[in-house]
Amino acid sequence: MDMVNFDERQILANGEIIYRQRAEIEAIADSICDVGFDLLLFTSSGGSQAMLDPFAFYIRHASRLPVENILSAELLLGGCNRITNRTVAFLTSKSGDTAETLKAARWLKTQGVRLVSVVGQADSPLEKLSSDTVVYGSGRPQELVFYLLIGRILHRSGCFAEYPRFADELKNLAFALAQVRKQADAKCRQYALDYCREPYNIWIGSGDLWPTAYSYSMCVLEESQWIRTKSVSSPEFFHGTLELLEKDVCTTLLLTEGPTRALDERVREFAARHTQKLTCFDTRDYELPGISPEFRPWLSPVVMAAVLQRISKNLEQITGHSLDIRRYYRKESY
Amino acid sequence: MDMVNFDERQILANGEIIYRQRAEIEAIADSICDVGFDLLLFTSSGGSQAMLDPFAFYIRHASRLPVENILSAELLLGGCNRITNRTVAFLTSKSGDTAETLKAARWLKTQGVRLVSVVGQADSPLEKLSSDTVVYGSGRPQELVFYLLIGRILHRSGCFAEYPRFADELKNLAFALAQVRKQADAKCRQYALDYCREPYNIWIGSGDLWPTAYSYSMCVLEESQWIRTKSVSSPEFFHGTLELLEKDVCTTLLLTEGPTRALDERVREFAARHTQKLTCFDTRDYELPGISPEFRPWLSPVVMAAVLQRISKNLEQITGHSLDIRRYYRKESY
Repeated sequence: MDMVNFDERQILANGEIIYRQRAEIEAIADSICDVGFDLLLFTSSGGSQAMLDPFAFYIRHASRLPVENILSAELLLGGCNRITNRTVAFLTSKSGDTAETLKAARWLKTQGVRLVSVVGQADSPLEKLSSDTVVYGSGRPQELVFYLLIGRILHRSGCFAEYPRFADELKNLAFALAQVRKQADAKCRQYALDYCREPYNIWIGSGDLWPTAYSYSMCVLEESQWIRTKSVSSPEFFHGTLELLEKDVCTTLLLTEGPTRALDERVREFAARHTQKLTCFDTRDYELPGISPEFRPWLSPVVMAAVLQRISKNLEQITGHSLDIRRYYRKESY
Repeated sequence: MDMVNFDERQILANGEIIYRQRAEIEAIADSICDVGFDLLLFTSSGGSQAMLDPFAFYIRHASRLPVENILSAELLLGGCNRITNRTVAFLTSKSGDTAETLKAARWLKTQGVRLVSVVGQADSPLEKLSSDTVVYGSGRPQELVFYLLIGRILHRSGCFAEYPRFADELKNLAFALAQVRKQADAKCRQYALDYCREPYNIWIGSGDLWPTAYSYSMCVLEESQWIRTKSVSSPEFFHGTLELLEKDVCTTLLLTEGPTRALDERVREFAARHTQKLTCFDTRDYELPGISPEFRPWLSPVVMAAVLQRISKNLEQITGHSLDIRRYYRKESY
């Protein structure tokens, strides 16, 4: 059977939209390094924040550069005490008009913070507030913008010597992720068939894949399929949620190739003994043609997003519940 | 009917165990300030980390002192890039031998970090590694140690002028929290009766009460009652979980008196329109005899813990499922 809702040419074209802006993106990074900074701040809302969080994680693991990541709603209420006029903030929003993100941008501007925004729509309110903007339009994956931006900043700071080769190979990223989708589809379709009616789903991940476990369960399964979930990080699973495991409790574990992999493997070993409904999605299982093995630890979030997208596409078709239906989101005011 | 499993004299005695150590605790704070520091780090595991997190929150909101809070398991894998030999780390563990916390302590010691531990057991492995230790034994609430320790550090740093009066009033904390339990019991018993068989429970909170929402649902309902939960912070609720609300979906909201209260009120307004099973626990509903109104915003976590304890005590009696039964925790190795 053909893969549901899969268009490889479109995926490649969407990658190209971002990659062809490489020089402009790297120029923003260079300018940030030339001017200097005392904090790199990642702030947005919901799924957008989850997309940003791994980049704060990479900076912490690869360097001693000062970094914070915090939801815009919490930032606005005093959640970060390191902001100065030498801070550089990275914000992202598909629409460029997410209310809390925009409010945070306005407040940061009053503090003299340099705003770098990454948005889907040109000429959005967020772009108007920002010193630097990358518009990705229908470009995918958006993470590619940040691999180039943050990778280059790390390189310029002496913490990522191999970056130029990494950036060259990122030309192949969209193609590699299309191949991941093909490798993952059969397993993901079966997963969707088996578990689309489960009353409760535990999702587990860690490190650079914790934001993926958190946001896929919340922003896709809950928001667009109305499926009940609980997400918990791999280390925290052992401080409570483990007690819920029984042989028929649907449990999904994401395994990263990043530094926290051992935490995920510990969950796998335990959960395999206590539920018959354990599914492990492991980025290591997928070939990435055109990407050197040494760079794989940076790419777990985009590889996993490609895998999980195949669950979404199949789920939507199997349940007949479009990914675009909402009860409340952007339909009611609140 | 009498309150289930409630002994006011014991509660007062347990508060006294900690309060009588006030001078020693403040001396630790003074020594930390005399020596100087470049980072205040809060690290532990599970419910202990959730108990610590509000103190990092208070430091961020009241000062520009450098602060980080991170799970020990993640710290060990490179999750914090600010550690130096001028860092002071705060760790807590009831047993004093929680595996990950202890490993983090050992690693921090190799980095020259000063370790301040707060433990239930004397002579534990954690105490042996630490420069300073407070043993609370059966003292409760453990947060009292941190109000004295962190309050004094903020005071010495010029960020909490009213601290001496706050610390004086904390002498009344255990009594005030006993009165909270009495005020809350009828509502909590009814809550336990109404919802002890719910198949899915959404728990929501923000800011200094987010760790409470997170850990009560995970470390009490999941771990000790095997009740299925999903916890989500008040701002994030609107980025996915809101779509799950239907008239019969059991939803519990915690309202703080801290700086993020507006985020909770927004959830209340929305959720009240979409489920008939909404319960709000609001710290503002409870009188705190002996505590000045100006200090209430520091105390939401301990007030809420006193309220929620009345759910636990009633739940255990209603379901006949002791809070001490475990399937796996500390029964299996993993």
